[in-house]
Amino acid sequence: MIVSDQVVSKMAKSENPSKGELTRQMIVAAAAPIFNQKGYEGCSLADLMAATGLQKGGIYRHFSSKEELAAAAFDYNCEVSRSARMALVDQAAPPLERLRQSIAAFVDYRSPVPGGCPILNTAVESDDGNGVLRARASKAVRGWVGRIQAMVQDAIDQGQIRKEVDAKSVATVIVAALEGAAMMNRLERNEYGLRQVQQHLYRYLDSELAPGEK
Amino acid sequence: MIVSDQVVSKMAKSENPSKGELTRQMIVAAAAPIFNQKGYEGCSLADLMAATGLQKGGIYRHFSSKEELAAAAFDYNCEVSRSARMALVDQAAPPLERLRQSIAAFVDYRSPVPGGCPILNTAVESDDGNGVLRARASKAVRGWVGRIQAMVQDAIDQGQIRKEVDAKSVATVIVAALEGAAMMNRLERNEYGLRQVQQHLYRYLDSELAPGEK
Repeated sequence: MIVSDQVVSKMAKSENPSKGELTRQMIVAAAAPIFNQKGYEGCSLADLMAATGLQKGGIYRHFSSKEELAAAAFDYNCEVSRSARMALVDQAAPPLERLRQSIAAFVDYRSPVPGGCPILNTAVESDDGNGVLRARASKAVRGWVGRIQAMVQDAIDQGQIRKEVDAKSVATVIVAALEGAAMMNRLERNEYGLRQVQQHLYRYLDSELAPGEK
Repeated sequence: MIVSDQVVSKMAKSENPSKGELTRQMIVAAAAPIFNQKGYEGCSLADLMAATGLQKGGIYRHFSSKEELAAAAFDYNCEVSRSARMALVDQAAPPLERLRQSIAAFVDYRSPVPGGCPILNTAVESDDGNGVLRARASKAVRGWVGRIQAMVQDAIDQGQIRKEVDAKSVATVIVAALEGAAMMNRLERNEYGLRQVQQHLYRYLDSELAPGEK
């Protein structure tokens, strides 16, 4: 999986991780794409054993429950997706350009984790039941909206977006449209929806939100 | 469940359905909310037996597989959602007003089926695996986009939306934004995202798409 080494090393709590810690990280990295593709319910012990090459006892020595492993796998998937996309955004660019690049990164690159956007997957599966996973997905969405909101606010502060605009509302619309388009992309296996949403959001930034527009 | 009687009667193939046909419909109606809440993988035989009051043999006399039952349940859930929302749209209103009402119906009413939007749920669960369910979800999304597209085209034809607009693209943006907001609504258990998207789409219809705008 792309950038997983980088993420694994980030996840390491120490410079010199113990064998147990490394095994735990390996299990998370191996389980992560399976949970993302099959979902929490759909991911069986046999799947986890096949992916990790470990027996049940070898896996659950490191996790108190399937839920704890799924939660760690979700965080891992989000971090892989986020960092892969963030690498495509020039942090030194003006805020409006960073917004555009963030949208493009989502559309062009999408989630490098097999199975599509982990937030969408986990949100949809956990909304009726699993409180732990739902809390993780909720935190991840809020983090994403918050990052976009900060860019919108920077753009407002620098006069690239007009002052009256509500940064949180704009960020929410951007994230909602991208997530809906990601669902269509996964379902239809083409980029049509993502491209339409990308163009729509570009026009939104360039016209409705632009200074001097009504 | 809301309007289920109406949908059940619509689903009946004949005026005088057989006992077997009625039992089949009852099983679909009883299983539908469970599949929508728990997903295909998460819905167990015990769940289906509890919901229908039937034993395994009594259920699977009418369906060749869990997949066949899940597909019928999905169609049922979509029909319940669609007809409940369609009832909130004045079919005699001008097309731009019908578009607005369709957006409001989604936001205000949302899916009357417990568990949220059946299309979103089924799309996310089936995108990596189940071909039968994925095909149903894909058809449902295309049907929804098609209905919105027809309204946009009517609005273009009646001069309420400017001629250069691509009706399919607009419909795709509307559906994507609503579905993404529905995901946020289910996750956060508040209407903030839906309301922001609603206002955004209203402005989109009234400004960017309006005749006389650039």
